[in-house]
Amino acid sequence: MIQFVEPIAWKDEVLYVLNQLKLPEIKEVNPKTTIEEVFSAIKEMELRGAPLIGIAAAYGMYLGIKDTTLEEHNQFMELMREKGDYLAGARPTAVNLFWAIERMVKLVATLEDKPTSEKKRILLAEAIKIHQEDERINRKIGENLLTLLEDEMTVLTHCNAGSLATSKYGTATSPFYIAKERGMNIKVYADETRPYLQGARLTAYELDQAGIDVTLICDNMAGFVMSQGKIDAVITGADRIAANGDTANKIGTMSLAILAKQFGIPFYIAAPTSTIDLNTPAGKEIIIEERNSEEITSWYGKQIAPQGIKVYNPAFDVTPHQLITAIVTEQGIVYPDYTTNLSKLFEK
Amino acid sequence: MIQFVEPIAWKDEVLYVLNQLKLPEIKEVNPKTTIEEVFSAIKEMELRGAPLIGIAAAYGMYLGIKDTTLEEHNQFMELMREKGDYLAGARPTAVNLFWAIERMVKLVATLEDKPTSEKKRILLAEAIKIHQEDERINRKIGENLLTLLEDEMTVLTHCNAGSLATSKYGTATSPFYIAKERGMNIKVYADETRPYLQGARLTAYELDQAGIDVTLICDNMAGFVMSQGKIDAVITGADRIAANGDTANKIGTMSLAILAKQFGIPFYIAAPTSTIDLNTPAGKEIIIEERNSEEITSWYGKQIAPQGIKVYNPAFDVTPHQLITAIVTEQGIVYPDYTTNLSKLFEK
Repeated sequence: MIQFVEPIAWKDEVLYVLNQLKLPEIKEVNPKTTIEEVFSAIKEMELRGAPLIGIAAAYGMYLGIKDTTLEEHNQFMELMREKGDYLAGARPTAVNLFWAIERMVKLVATLEDKPTSEKKRILLAEAIKIHQEDERINRKIGENLLTLLEDEMTVLTHCNAGSLATSKYGTATSPFYIAKERGMNIKVYADETRPYLQGARLTAYELDQAGIDVTLICDNMAGFVMSQGKIDAVITGADRIAANGDTANKIGTMSLAILAKQFGIPFYIAAPTSTIDLNTPAGKEIIIEERNSEEITSWYGKQIAPQGIKVYNPAFDVTPHQLITAIVTEQGIVYPDYTTNLSKLFEK
Repeated sequence: MIQFVEPIAWKDEVLYVLNQLKLPEIKEVNPKTTIEEVFSAIKEMELRGAPLIGIAAAYGMYLGIKDTTLEEHNQFMELMREKGDYLAGARPTAVNLFWAIERMVKLVATLEDKPTSEKKRILLAEAIKIHQEDERINRKIGENLLTLLEDEMTVLTHCNAGSLATSKYGTATSPFYIAKERGMNIKVYADETRPYLQGARLTAYELDQAGIDVTLICDNMAGFVMSQGKIDAVITGADRIAANGDTANKIGTMSLAILAKQFGIPFYIAAPTSTIDLNTPAGKEIIIEERNSEEITSWYGKQIAPQGIKVYNPAFDVTPHQLITAIVTEQGIVYPDYTTNLSKLFEK
């Protein structure tokens, strides 16, 4: 049995959240019994990762209405909207947060003839379904990716598109877990991923816990490791994929794609189809979030750069579709031409 | 007047050393009056940078003999060799350390007819000469580099090949200081340079102190900044240049060269001719030092990666000569074909 690091778990009306801020030093699991506590957990980044935020938000919405005594449908709907507006403020740029809230609110709208007790039951079942769907999608992504890999291969990954960002398998990490289940030995190099160190603190941690052979490197070592012939494939997650295949992901991803091309190494994006945004024609439309300078200049209160120094801290970059060997979704492996082939996923 | 950060200064028989381990938070200057204190400063990396280690070693050798009362030449020579063997143990891989010690020892061998007081005077003069030579060489490198740049250009640099690694101008940073002297406005992006953060702690610090427009980024942001058209040239130092132009330098340099090529940006190496090693035919002969894992997994005692995780920590990489636009030395700008043109520097 593989030991997956569980970022959240639902049991007996309580959402248990692993505090990712304290990893890897401390494994602290905090129970959440109110929507306010879920709000704080998302806002303070006790949990992070787009899919995981969506799942937590669904449970949070349930926690927000589970004690209401309102029996009148319109009043219940009003309460749902109010709770949704509140929870949406936890991270105003997280698309999955709004998506999950919206899904829960819309569901209630279809339940006009049901008593409140039944509405509550159905809402909890929906949150659990969202949770399970994510696991199923990630497993499928991993199975698809694994058809591109062979036993004893070594894969480089960046940031954390793993268990800790999703439920169970992760996206980019999914083939590593499934390979492990099948008794294969896929080895992993994890970039530490400055400035927030998701690779060091989270990816290295969760893979190590699962008994997967993982080696940690600094971001500036990836090209050298590739040049040594140590890397057979690069796999990263995605924050948003444009209609032409251009992919926004954690800063540094684009450089990895260029380096991979230089050394003839395939570069794969692992992402659920929900990440594909056909309304965004190309990557140049995607606005890159800039984050605060303290992420770079200080470390747990220790100043590591001159006080007041000018800093540029883009959180993401966009990898041009020409550098992407394939985009691997739960529906299958998508190869270029992406403009044609990504849109086909939505024609069914 | 530009404010140069002085890593060492000699005054009234005392070597003053800026403790680089405490930068940028604390500017602590420690006086060294014995060879033992200089040994410790080099060993503990209170000072670092190949040229600077050589300069400090020369002063250290003088401090080692300045109080001797031995008048017999052979005994004095014996003492010099003894002190040299001792000091060479401070950093067993630092080529400049041995070079400076050897130069001091060989000088004494030519002074058989001189009294000890005169030998001491000549040795101190030699240490000061080594110090001044380095400054002159670095200034010349900067002047040569500046002919490749224009006012208002922006240059990316990596690690610290600056004032703090040499005397006054640095190598890669030299054109920035000279541009500033001339009233030009060259802007700089500095990679933070994990794991040791020489870019954040040292380069950003010394350029900021000198009033040069410097922006700090993480290593994984360099490619993105290039893709935005913000960078007109990349300039780094070198640890060792092979006869064919392949250049060993701080880990991450090779990746920058690949990214620069991708975006059509010139990539320059700044180095004194003493860095060129014609006895090494090509970069593949250069053994890459691996450093300990704690540099990556912990930070000022704070664990930032799982305990016991496997780590790969190469300190250097080798940039293939094909990716280098020019190698800029104090003797001039060397373009390909490097095998021919580097050897010409030594034919005079």
